Amino acid sequence: MSAEKPAAPHTLDGLFRPRSVAVIGASRRPGSLGRSLLRNLFLFEFEGKVFPVNPRADVILSSKAYRSVLEIPDDVDLAIIIVPRDHTLRALEECGLKGVKGVVVISSGFREVGGEGLERERRAVEICRRYGMRMIGPNCMGIINTEEGVRLNATFSPTMPRPGRIGFLSQSGAMGVAILNHARSLGLGISMFASMGNKADVSGNDLLEYWEGDEGTRLVLMYLESFGNPRKFTQIARRLTRKKPVIAVKSGRTAAGAAAAASHTGALAGSDVAVDALLSQCGVLRADSVEDLFDMALAFTSQSLPRGNRVAVLTDAGGPAIMATDALPSAGLVMAELSAETKAALAADLSPDASVKNPIDMLGHSNHIDYARCLDLVLADVNVDAVIALYVPPVADEAIPVARAIADGSGTSDKPVLCVFMARDEVLDSVKREFGARLPIYEFPESAVQALGAMVRYEAMLERDPGTTPVFDVDRETAAGVFRAVKDGDRKNLTLDESRQVFEAYGIPFAKSRLCRSREELAELAGDVGYPMVIKITSPDIIHKTDVGGVIAGIRSFEEAQDAFDRVMARAEALVPAPRIDGVLLQEMRENAQEMIVGVTTDLNFGPLLMAGLGGIFVEVLKDVAFRIHPITDRDASAMIEGLRGAPLLRGLRGRPPLCVDAYVDALLRVSQLVSDHECILELDINPFMVAVEAEQCMAVDGRIRIDPELL
Amino acid sequence: MSAEKPAAPHTLDGLFRPRSVAVIGASRRPGSLGRSLLRNLFLFEFEGKVFPVNPRADVILSSKAYRSVLEIPDDVDLAIIIVPRDHTLRALEECGLKGVKGVVVISSGFREVGGEGLERERRAVEICRRYGMRMIGPNCMGIINTEEGVRLNATFSPTMPRPGRIGFLSQSGAMGVAILNHARSLGLGISMFASMGNKADVSGNDLLEYWEGDEGTRLVLMYLESFGNPRKFTQIARRLTRKKPVIAVKSGRTAAGAAAAASHTGALAGSDVAVDALLSQCGVLRADSVEDLFDMALAFTSQSLPRGNRVAVLTDAGGPAIMATDALPSAGLVMAELSAETKAALAADLSPDASVKNPIDMLGHSNHIDYARCLDLVLADVNVDAVIALYVPPVADEAIPVARAIADGSGTSDKPVLCVFMARDEVLDSVKREFGARLPIYEFPESAVQALGAMVRYEAMLERDPGTTPVFDVDRETAAGVFRAVKDGDRKNLTLDESRQVFEAYGIPFAKSRLCRSREELAELAGDVGYPMVIKITSPDIIHKTDVGGVIAGIRSFEEAQDAFDRVMARAEALVPAPRIDGVLLQEMRENAQEMIVGVTTDLNFGPLLMAGLGGIFVEVLKDVAFRIHPITDRDASAMIEGLRGAPLLRGLRGRPPLCVDAYVDALLRVSQLVSDHECILELDINPFMVAVEAEQCMAVDGRIRIDPELL
Repeated sequence: MSAEKPAAPHTLDGLFRPRSVAVIGASRRPGSLGRSLLRNLFLFEFEGKVFPVNPRADVILSSKAYRSVLEIPDDVDLAIIIVPRDHTLRALEECGLKGVKGVVVISSGFREVGGEGLERERRAVEICRRYGMRMIGPNCMGIINTEEGVRLNATFSPTMPRPGRIGFLSQSGAMGVAILNHARSLGLGISMFASMGNKADVSGNDLLEYWEGDEGTRLVLMYLESFGNPRKFTQIARRLTRKKPVIAVKSGRTAAGAAAAASHTGALAGSDVAVDALLSQCGVLRADSVEDLFDMALAFTSQSLPRGNRVAVLTDAGGPAIMATDALPSAGLVMAELSAETKAALAADLSPDASVKNPIDMLGHSNHIDYARCLDLVLADVNVDAVIALYVPPVADEAIPVARAIADGSGTSDKPVLCVFMARDEVLDSVKREFGARLPIYEFPESAVQALGAMVRYEAMLERDPGTTPVFDVDRETAAGVFRAVKDGDRKNLTLDESRQVFEAYGIPFAKSRLCRSREELAELAGDVGYPMVIKITSPDIIHKTDVGGVIAGIRSFEEAQDAFDRVMARAEALVPAPRIDGVLLQEMRENAQEMIVGVTTDLNFGPLLMAGLGGIFVEVLKDVAFRIHPITDRDASAMIEGLRGAPLLRGLRGRPPLCVDAYVDALLRVSQLVSDHECILELDINPFMVAVEAEQCMAVDGRIRIDPELL
Repeated sequence: MSAEKPAAPHTLDGLFRPRSVAVIGASRRPGSLGRSLLRNLFLFEFEGKVFPVNPRADVILSSKAYRSVLEIPDDVDLAIIIVPRDHTLRALEECGLKGVKGVVVISSGFREVGGEGLERERRAVEICRRYGMRMIGPNCMGIINTEEGVRLNATFSPTMPRPGRIGFLSQSGAMGVAILNHARSLGLGISMFASMGNKADVSGNDLLEYWEGDEGTRLVLMYLESFGNPRKFTQIARRLTRKKPVIAVKSGRTAAGAAAAASHTGALAGSDVAVDALLSQCGVLRADSVEDLFDMALAFTSQSLPRGNRVAVLTDAGGPAIMATDALPSAGLVMAELSAETKAALAADLSPDASVKNPIDMLGHSNHIDYARCLDLVLADVNVDAVIALYVPPVADEAIPVARAIADGSGTSDKPVLCVFMARDEVLDSVKREFGARLPIYEFPESAVQALGAMVRYEAMLERDPGTTPVFDVDRETAAGVFRAVKDGDRKNLTLDESRQVFEAYGIPFAKSRLCRSREELAELAGDVGYPMVIKITSPDIIHKTDVGGVIAGIRSFEEAQDAFDRVMARAEALVPAPRIDGVLLQEMRENAQEMIVGVTTDLNFGPLLMAGLGGIFVEVLKDVAFRIHPITDRDASAMIEGLRGAPLLRGLRGRPPLCVDAYVDALLRVSQLVSDHECILELDINPFMVAVEAEQCMAVDGRIRIDPELL
């Protein structure tokens, strides 16, 4: 996902569907990467021709070797370059001259080592552009395409991939090896795999676009360490996730982890809150670990999506069923309420000691006939969206017939069935070997529950209206004028009044405020502001106005205003040392309203991030805020608010009427448009924005904007 | 963990260290439990004699069978009963007559099925008591003791346990089977194992006491579904955890899970918040799943405890190191800052592209010599408390020598080393087989990090002063008098004034309050209360006083008080429909203070639970509260507060002085003593308790107590 460049997805066929491959740097030395890679091409039975290239060898692995790619008598579609760093550029140049379409550069010693590596990488890209070659890497572990008619394993991984429907993209070579290992041991099949390395030419985004159109790829998995072009990623991923599930592990999650990521790949790690926002806005499912990633993949590859979150748990033992039931809520799942007919049918089938209330405990010694019958009954129940079948083999080892019964039952239904076998290794392995392709089989109940939760989230995402980004009729020119004036004044920060003008130009209501310098002005200014009113001492020396009794709210009449004015001034004047006093701010006030905050900050990597949250301690102490990558849709804005811990305060606590959240959503969307229209905005805060019961009562009370004058 | 009964731990030797075992219900039928169990005794090579008992067989598994236990010519120490439910009581009676010391009842059909099962269980216990036999079960899967000279495997589990140092207690038979499977596949060794079944006689507590004194058991693992006698568990576990680590999975965690638990074992599941409190107060480590339990066990069995939480990560690949680094903070761990000497020494050893800043990335192709040298350097660094070593085998498979290097390095240090091998199954299995006993080996970085986090938590618990429960000089008799008066009045709820008397009798300061019914009384009553003051409208018809402008705070003079009285009364009188008005409550007020709450609720299973938290939205919206099982120590009280999300408010936000948390701790401890002294207290609330900067300014403002008069 590197810098924007002309995307031409079909050209990746030269990389992934070659008819001939040269291995430049193929080697006779056992244990070398150059030998392992060549060997993998042969062992996996690549359908095209393979040409080893090595100036100092005549034959490698029984194949004639060439001194240079230029000496190969046939056309070469793909070249794998695996030579010492100092020879890479000449090899690339020769590939260009030969008319090679794609290169995979395994060699390291480029951007990741800094210094001369940066220049080497720049020149490598220049050579590729000059000859119209596409390049994966450098500093990667290779690519795989298991498609019939291709069968390309151009990696040095010791594990042979199984053919399947998963496209896997890894930003780390080592994780790529680990991932191929783990996929193999779970019985998961790969359609294509790419280790991206430094992404000097082909980016992750290019690959996602390529896979979007690939019939053989039905599920996309990613191991990410950084984002090159988040905006393009957003466009592609939003489209792709509506066609195929995309699951990602993004590492560099915490501050400590991000430091490790930077030192590792030289890539600037985006802050994690931005990554979370980006992935969820795009519909990408985020896994916490590689283990979780594969648990999810297992379910997606063989089972239909559930149409809801109601789960039936079928078991031969109580303990594991409790573990499964416990795990449901945090995965967004609920126990299904079985219909009376289902319960009756189950009761007729099972022993009187069995439990026919979900979880359905068929008790120990249940056999494949019990599993087959009960699974059919439960799958037929309209109140059930998905089934988790648990089996703890007691004595007589019935694991294979039970697994077959569950796999067969699952095959007749379009509801997902996930399976947990708490059996010893040999049993588990043989069950996975035989039924792994038809049935997701887990060792622990929690894994099955997490995977099912991800399926439900994906299905909900597909069902959900992604929303739209409305375009408001705003006074763009007024705002631009304010920004120009700030720039002309050689400033970056807008005054409160300038900020107010910008907000009002974008239709965001702002509280009426007047600075009252003397008791004489009070009558007129208070009349302007109206009641109820709040008055606040205004002094450069008083930061925490409330602490010194400098704020009086709920003023309902001119008499109360006079009284409050006197009291606040008297308290301020009594302070030691005596503060400078500008006067008293009279401000429109909302009662029964909730303070909220709207914020914008600019992430170096992701651009403007919008923040929503409740004000006061919610933001200061609890950090109870939600972020989204800009631009947001109306649906994004609502989801931001729904996810807040303090959200119950907006829905009307203790029998109070609910507050007008729509007015706050409107403000968020208008701020989003403001940021779109004026790239110069670096930071923006509305704090507080008062959300009241009536829309027309909602308003911003305070706000500030900071711009980068260079961007004007 | 059943009802209190005379504990005699040494008598469990009759169960776990028998010299002869009768299997009543031994069977010739392949696949039957009675045959599997007998077979396990033989296969595991029990050191004593085994006598099959079956009235309809002459020989079983080549062994002479007896018609009844009474016909066995030798003494019988232990009998395993595995007959149909209707024959269990006769078998028990015969065991008693025979002088058997211990029985393990595998048969089901007791309390867990309800109805006649309850009576059957009652009679079984009665027979055991009559003959002085100890019983495990009924409805269990048996027991194991791997000790040399015993070698007892009296279960029907298909997995043979490895001898080792783990005592494992399971409340679920099926989970027991799964647990033995999993322990075996991880290479973990068991000292003793017991599936507890219905716990009609021997309880989990009995077993914990037995293991407390067992030299061969160094680590205790538990799978729990319910607590029989939490108070006794607390006593035993507090003592046990200071000698041996105890790790528990408690299922029935959520409401949905608890329903499943109840239907399964018939046991009343404690609420999860109480379970969390109980386990952490006792120093028991809680695992979220069986998988996590074993990840932790792996580390505890072979590695020393770390003396701190500073971790060095040694790796041959960047990706997995980032995953590990990411996982540290949530496990309470930090990246170690390596000393300059260590970095220099590493740099001298490694290639220039390697990173010697933690994580130490030795780059791909690192071999066992690199691992040995770097591990030694890192372990010698005084800034490092523990090491996580990651290895992704690239091509040449060096896994065994690398594992040996790490195991050897770990053996020379008293710092823990945890190992992650992201290798294919065969490699991982062979490494585990060879080094699993000396080195905890994980497949994923996150598992190692979680396990190390548990070790650090355990070590911190051992280091921590458990605190003491102070005894305050209180006026117990006054409080008792109030409770008696409430009982005599045929009431359960104390009035505000009665509650205040009780709190003051226990040294908990209470705000001065006066109900002012008319403007005429105001001068005198306001003088009693003093300034600053808050006044609150008092009406049975006005619940949310603030919403109607019925509360005015910050009153600083008699003039302000008169003004506030008039305003509040006028607002109330203007309401439609007109409310009944009792008057206005004048109350002492604290400025710059934080509202907090102290609560007591009674859990059916766990007794009084104390609650601490901040008031207002913290308790109402955010449920930001901490619970502890009663009684608490001073250390418990402080820990309750430290764990609150709102705790920063107490430490002095935005440069304000910190509040007097000690006064709140004092109130919590006094409430704990109050609850100890008066069992009749069912519920108690102090809301709010105002915590101010100065101790003498802290006070309860409102409170209520509910008692059960029957308990007086």
